[in-house]
Amino acid sequence: MSKNHETEHPKKAFGWAARDSSGVLSPFNFSRRATGDNDVALKILYCGICHSDLHAIKNEWGNSVYPIVPGHEIVGVVTEVGPKVKKFKVGDKVGVGCLVGACTNSNSCHSCKDGFENYCPEMILTYNALYHDGTITYGGYSDWLVVEDRFAVRFPDSVPMDKGAPLLCAGITVYAPLKYFNLNEPGKHIGIVGLGGLGHVAVKFAKAFGAKVTVISTSPSKEEEAIEHVGADEFLVSKNAEQMQAAMGTMDGIIDTVSAVHLLLPLISLLKSNGKLILVGAPEKPLELPVFPLIMGGRVIAGSCIGGMKDTQEMIDFAAEHNITAEVEVIKMDYVNTAMERLAKNDVRYRFVIDVAGTIKA
Amino acid sequence: MSKNHETEHPKKAFGWAARDSSGVLSPFNFSRRATGDNDVALKILYCGICHSDLHAIKNEWGNSVYPIVPGHEIVGVVTEVGPKVKKFKVGDKVGVGCLVGACTNSNSCHSCKDGFENYCPEMILTYNALYHDGTITYGGYSDWLVVEDRFAVRFPDSVPMDKGAPLLCAGITVYAPLKYFNLNEPGKHIGIVGLGGLGHVAVKFAKAFGAKVTVISTSPSKEEEAIEHVGADEFLVSKNAEQMQAAMGTMDGIIDTVSAVHLLLPLISLLKSNGKLILVGAPEKPLELPVFPLIMGGRVIAGSCIGGMKDTQEMIDFAAEHNITAEVEVIKMDYVNTAMERLAKNDVRYRFVIDVAGTIKA
Repeated sequence: MSKNHETEHPKKAFGWAARDSSGVLSPFNFSRRATGDNDVALKILYCGICHSDLHAIKNEWGNSVYPIVPGHEIVGVVTEVGPKVKKFKVGDKVGVGCLVGACTNSNSCHSCKDGFENYCPEMILTYNALYHDGTITYGGYSDWLVVEDRFAVRFPDSVPMDKGAPLLCAGITVYAPLKYFNLNEPGKHIGIVGLGGLGHVAVKFAKAFGAKVTVISTSPSKEEEAIEHVGADEFLVSKNAEQMQAAMGTMDGIIDTVSAVHLLLPLISLLKSNGKLILVGAPEKPLELPVFPLIMGGRVIAGSCIGGMKDTQEMIDFAAEHNITAEVEVIKMDYVNTAMERLAKNDVRYRFVIDVAGTIKA
Repeated sequence: MSKNHETEHPKKAFGWAARDSSGVLSPFNFSRRATGDNDVALKILYCGICHSDLHAIKNEWGNSVYPIVPGHEIVGVVTEVGPKVKKFKVGDKVGVGCLVGACTNSNSCHSCKDGFENYCPEMILTYNALYHDGTITYGGYSDWLVVEDRFAVRFPDSVPMDKGAPLLCAGITVYAPLKYFNLNEPGKHIGIVGLGGLGHVAVKFAKAFGAKVTVISTSPSKEEEAIEHVGADEFLVSKNAEQMQAAMGTMDGIIDTVSAVHLLLPLISLLKSNGKLILVGAPEKPLELPVFPLIMGGRVIAGSCIGGMKDTQEMIDFAAEHNITAEVEVIKMDYVNTAMERLAKNDVRYRFVIDVAGTIKA
């Protein structure tokens, strides 16, 4: 088996992979395809650790195919471009997020046509997915990557590469629904539920759009952090009935980043009529949906999953313009298993980013 | 108490009222206010029987104040106008739906400002509600009505008054979300769940907008009716797994009119990515909301409650233009209790309408 990974493609690659549902990552020799006509090859400099990576290496969604090389918050430098690539040249800084493929013809499905490759039925994830050529995709916990140019974005010079890496997943995940549901207009009141990897970035984007931003959290201890450090305007403790009551009917939209099972009614109650509650965290069990308050206020609940490539480029350019970055703890490659343990305990402020180029050793 | 209803206002009125949660309706003498500066008085010709009327007379929502005169699908003829009324003159045909009041200043809340009086926090329902003057509102099972001109719509000559009456509630309830969620564009595929008072009208509006319309029902027996009579293109039996599977991911939007507790997952699965499931029926208990399919498809679930006054006028004009009416069974006033019993058993195709002017006897 392992020989297969090393020889199925012509070019050698090296990364860290989980081999089974223990989720323990260890050094892994594999291979990547030669740079195709529309491909760019890149040396990976930094890669963020997303909570999905933890789910995947432990097979918590039940769809993991081992070995898995995780990582979909990738920043690198182009080392080679295919003959048909016009968008990039060697030396360019690029970002790669959760997607590396979709319809082969970008107009063949309604989602791709509308710029939502993220909802394309043939969408291919950056790791643990079947690529067009029938091989499994490997992610950014590795020395280099080859990707179709359509799925790489220009990474602006002014965005620090380590602090910018998480934007490729966490950033677009919150930017896209803020845009898509018209919550990006100045003067809106936006609630952000959960101050973690997604939530702290959501606060920054919503502020940059000109919103009044209120963080809603179960932890009173996060108030100072939310306001002083991340830049929120207000803070609500979700278990404080008085605070929640006082804020009822005041919000135009809420980005809910919580993936634990939780009550929707208190959040719906915070919305104005026609307000929108956007879920970007996926609890494993169904939530309780009270229909009456949804109907009486003409309110909306929606799910949103990352974003399309055009929006991803727009997001990173917007981040550059507004000096938005994630708060990160940069780690060495061989610290990754400890980082995963800490992430499982939410012991990170707010995102681990692996200094891949600086610390990976083949 | 009953004297109070007869004398609290200067003008005598007569209707049928429920006196307690038995829901039995009986003749009722009461009074209505004099025609104010911005009011129109109307002789009621027809009034539809909405399922809400049944809930209200039996206090099934727990907020009934007896005696209740129900009725919010009202068509009549103007008999008097206040000195400041420019919109109507004596003899005009008018419709009154679920609302008779909202903010006193139409720009004082964000909902009224945007044309959504139906979501105004000070919205006043046509019956069983507290009016500005502190008295209780009485609905259309009565000989005449006085209403602020803002809450009456011009009723087009070409729409039959009996078959048009239900549009004032059932029609706007389905028209507004089709419009608001961009499901009114030609070529869309729209699902309608439940072929009752709301559902059969929803099929007609969606068809008139140029959609392909599929009715989704638990009753296979309704297929012929849905397609041959109401005009749907296709029919899905929701319990038929094979049919439901084949239709997965094909719909742009669904109007769900069912107010019994039911599963959302099969309906969500019918939606394309970015598809919208609009709930207009309110089950008493929370529904199960599976979050994963919502997120993975960027799908939307929304509630919608009737519509604003501008949209109501637009709806009835659109109905006139496209020959849309409800299918009705016209009844006499003194048949109303039997009609309520039959309605409770869904024994009506599709809406009872009371011939008020022709059969009410003081």
